[in-house]
Amino acid sequence: MQYPEPIARLIDSYTKLPGIGPKTATRLAFYTLGMEEADVIAFAKSLQAVKADIAFCEICGNITSKDVNPCMICQDKSRDQSTVLVVQNSRDVMAMENTREYHGLYHVLNGVISPSAGTGPEDINLPSLIRRLSSNDQIQEVIVGTNANADGEATAMYIARLLKPANIKVTRLAHGLAVGSDIDYADQLTLIKAVEGRNEL
Amino acid sequence: MQYPEPIARLIDSYTKLPGIGPKTATRLAFYTLGMEEADVIAFAKSLQAVKADIAFCEICGNITSKDVNPCMICQDKSRDQSTVLVVQNSRDVMAMENTREYHGLYHVLNGVISPSAGTGPEDINLPSLIRRLSSNDQIQEVIVGTNANADGEATAMYIARLLKPANIKVTRLAHGLAVGSDIDYADQLTLIKAVEGRNEL
Repeated sequence: MQYPEPIARLIDSYTKLPGIGPKTATRLAFYTLGMEEADVIAFAKSLQAVKADIAFCEICGNITSKDVNPCMICQDKSRDQSTVLVVQNSRDVMAMENTREYHGLYHVLNGVISPSAGTGPEDINLPSLIRRLSSNDQIQEVIVGTNANADGEATAMYIARLLKPANIKVTRLAHGLAVGSDIDYADQLTLIKAVEGRNEL
Repeated sequence: MQYPEPIARLIDSYTKLPGIGPKTATRLAFYTLGMEEADVIAFAKSLQAVKADIAFCEICGNITSKDVNPCMICQDKSRDQSTVLVVQNSRDVMAMENTREYHGLYHVLNGVISPSAGTGPEDINLPSLIRRLSSNDQIQEVIVGTNANADGEATAMYIARLLKPANIKVTRLAHGLAVGSDIDYADQLTLIKAVEGRNEL
């Protein structure tokens, strides 16, 4: 037996989302059936709006509203124009902004170099970083803030080598113990990095 | 800092779904941004369709397409018209239908009597069961298939008492060990029910 067509189609749509299997999709579809009509319509509209109204900043590659391009951060002349933090995606920008401690600019790769996934330097937002650096002589430091895993490290190394001839300082976010963490729960690589990067007190 | 308006609204919509917190909602919203446009439009349409095109069967209360009412099961004269299985929701109907072993009719309560949640007999699809039984003398047995928890048991007892004067046989789905389960992992109440309901070999 099959669910009525409209429910079956909605279950199918929910199943396309990551981490949502058929059981959860069914539960969500029935929950949707019981939701306020206004909320469901708002949900449907926001789905379409996200495809129609979101663009990528022409300078840094971060997400922005279609009518605000370059993005708010690139437009903000009060920010430190000499530093660019390179991150993998827009959520990383949000995480960094929420600290309120970084006041430079960003460059969002929207991906990472991953030989295992077949993603090369040309498949991510890296050529635009080179163009940006060569056309803008205010930038003096590029901080590489890719994730602390194999693909993130490989991307960081690639960027460092790429920018060496350009005489731009390239740095990497520090590795070490997470604040509040226990040493006996830290993995070996993190401990090694913490010793290597030790600071004088 | 806030995400651009369209993303923020979509995160908000995802957060309204059960079991989805802000972190997961953000991940889903960014995933949606990267989905094929056709899939997102289909998703949006199926959301609206589920509110517009799904109705409840006027006989049994099961979900059905708006243009198929009474539902397919109630319309099917080849099914055993003398037995009605009372369940809490449409997913229970689907689970039972998938066994292909039950050939009677259903009555879907779309809820359960729950004093703790303030849900009384009038708040679920129970009055229509009484009307259905009094206007249809083919029905000889009502099987109560509410869940095997406190609310489900209370609802089963209520239905049994309600139907006693009407001279209709009221039965309850068997409690006991799940097939394939280990006795040492079964909870105490299930074991007690399994002993009480033991069958001769």
